[in-house]
Amino acid sequence: MADTKVYRASTTAPVNIAVVKYWGKRDAKLNLPTNSSLSVTLSQADLRTLTTASCSNSYTEGDSLTLNGEAADVAGARTQACFRELRSRRAALEAADASLPKLSAMPVKLVSENNFPTAAGLASSAAGFAALVKAIALLYELPDSPAELSIVARQGSGSACRSLFGGYAAWRMGEKADGSDSKAELIAPASHWPEMRALILVASAAKKGVSSTSGMQQTVATSGLFQQRISTVVPANMASMEAAVHAKDFAKFAEVTMRESNSFHATCADTYPPIFYMNDVSRAAIRAVEQINAEAGETIAAYTFDAGPNCVVYYLEKDASTILGTFYKPLAEVTGWKEGAASIKSTVELEGSLASSLKEGVSRVILTGVGEGPTKTDEYLIDENGQAVKR
Amino acid sequence: MADTKVYRASTTAPVNIAVVKYWGKRDAKLNLPTNSSLSVTLSQADLRTLTTASCSNSYTEGDSLTLNGEAADVAGARTQACFRELRSRRAALEAADASLPKLSAMPVKLVSENNFPTAAGLASSAAGFAALVKAIALLYELPDSPAELSIVARQGSGSACRSLFGGYAAWRMGEKADGSDSKAELIAPASHWPEMRALILVASAAKKGVSSTSGMQQTVATSGLFQQRISTVVPANMASMEAAVHAKDFAKFAEVTMRESNSFHATCADTYPPIFYMNDVSRAAIRAVEQINAEAGETIAAYTFDAGPNCVVYYLEKDASTILGTFYKPLAEVTGWKEGAASIKSTVELEGSLASSLKEGVSRVILTGVGEGPTKTDEYLIDENGQAVKR
Repeated sequence: MADTKVYRASTTAPVNIAVVKYWGKRDAKLNLPTNSSLSVTLSQADLRTLTTASCSNSYTEGDSLTLNGEAADVAGARTQACFRELRSRRAALEAADASLPKLSAMPVKLVSENNFPTAAGLASSAAGFAALVKAIALLYELPDSPAELSIVARQGSGSACRSLFGGYAAWRMGEKADGSDSKAELIAPASHWPEMRALILVASAAKKGVSSTSGMQQTVATSGLFQQRISTVVPANMASMEAAVHAKDFAKFAEVTMRESNSFHATCADTYPPIFYMNDVSRAAIRAVEQINAEAGETIAAYTFDAGPNCVVYYLEKDASTILGTFYKPLAEVTGWKEGAASIKSTVELEGSLASSLKEGVSRVILTGVGEGPTKTDEYLIDENGQAVKR
Repeated sequence: MADTKVYRASTTAPVNIAVVKYWGKRDAKLNLPTNSSLSVTLSQADLRTLTTASCSNSYTEGDSLTLNGEAADVAGARTQACFRELRSRRAALEAADASLPKLSAMPVKLVSENNFPTAAGLASSAAGFAALVKAIALLYELPDSPAELSIVARQGSGSACRSLFGGYAAWRMGEKADGSDSKAELIAPASHWPEMRALILVASAAKKGVSSTSGMQQTVATSGLFQQRISTVVPANMASMEAAVHAKDFAKFAEVTMRESNSFHATCADTYPPIFYMNDVSRAAIRAVEQINAEAGETIAAYTFDAGPNCVVYYLEKDASTILGTFYKPLAEVTGWKEGAASIKSTVELEGSLASSLKEGVSRVILTGVGEGPTKTDEYLIDENGQAVKR
């Protein structure tokens, strides 16, 4: 009789925040970038996607995905590309070993949940596709390395390829037309520089403007400054950033991070029509970081912004009291502070206009730090009978 | 007996707003730019500086300048350079013709007034130095052409060299180390394209940030994208803009104007630390112009921003009702509208968020258009006895 067993596997995957930015595709279908990028993987204790992948001949409705309790579309080219790649790799194993169950021919059911509010406006697609690819790879018992899986995840969402690694990861743009050399690799594990912390200032008006997918292609097509960024600025920043991470040189890490964010948003502003992701609150956060560094007499904080107004402030554990104490004063009322934040003392008193801008425009904070990559787990969002677990 | 006569001459000079921006010096002492620029001279009926230059052996206190009723410093290197250049040209005339009074040896007294509030945050230095140089040139009866005088004015304030011409003027960056070929020239007189209009939205928070003099040098020193701007972007924009002006092609004029403003502010944002002249109100003005063009189905308005948040909207007289009517709705309460503005009808209804941002952040408007260059006048701010006229 036919195999109607339900096969399952679960994994978590992290969010990553780039310090050398991915902006621009040279091949939109394969998600091949115009430049390499580098990111810090953030702790899954604070930000993670949990995904259970399962497959069974008993699934009659075909492939499906439930995201945060709601049915999500799996017909999209990005998701289909991931399914196709993973099934073909499983099929190869099955062809080589007839004793293996024919999972590649079964419908896939995925259930996925984030432990952070989508409202936060944090790019969750990176963690989402990294978890999707990793969960199915576990389900299929694929021997592929994280780097090999990153080639699959990249086709789901470019930055997702970096979320297959913990710590500090680079996405090498590669040169081949088929994208087989455009993949992520580990620069250094979290254990190499575990003191890295991140404070995320979530902006109230985090309503998404131009989507990054269309925005980056408008930049490629219309910015007169973009070529300089990808041909000269980014390669230099990649080299400096890798050296800074290896040497655990925070001042260098911070300068490159800030210059990179500035360069990325500059090419957005040079797009026609111009794209603005930062607002007056974002700029207040930049000035606050500059004031903190000026009063510290050294660079102890770095700002970076993705395709939105949220500010991510990187700092080292040793400077936590200065960074958190300074931002806590104007933001004491918002959610996200951890216990004891109120008692943290900082000598830095933000200029009145900066403090009021932040107070007005920041709706919540997220305190986190560098963390590990995807982790297999026995926590399942689909039960043995193939039903989504009620939570 | 010694000549104690008071010699006088008066001129007015206009403001100009660049559509291809000057940003960056290759020689800070001589004010030699890293790129050429092009501007529209605005009507002196709305924005002008009136300056009377006089000299007399009866002046005992040495060279002096009174600006808007207050004593101003003439010891600055910029002002001294202008005085020195003009005196040497006068001295050459005197050496060639002994019958000429020895004005070059007399103390100079200057009195200058703007017909617009300094509060408006409009760069008045261009009109100011153009008027200063032109007034002294008239006083000294110098034969120099506007282009020759622009070399002198340039040393006072770079953009001042363009204010020696009406209509549409270019500042050729030149190549020589002594700056003798870095001067302004006429692209087309106002009469060539008299329909050009400008609506200036003066932002409330027009408190000056980084001065343009120091800001542009920070950009030259730290922006990784700046080289691309001066080597490739600006030369292409200069050629397109000149062609657009000659052909009176507003759509092209507008596109280059907007791309140029975007490119200039992009290099400011790419400066380290970043320089931000535009704020959320400025961005609302950009979106408003984009909405107007979208609803018109053609480009009938162009935005440009100098080193501040004020938005200058260029448009043609034929589209005055659409442009003015659209901005009047949210800005009916601010000063600066001309008679009849309330009765102007526009079919464009700005998005609520844009309208409220503008209403919140714009403190006054200035309605003007393309105008003439410096004009000799019999209106004197210094009387026959060398006394500042009470006004």
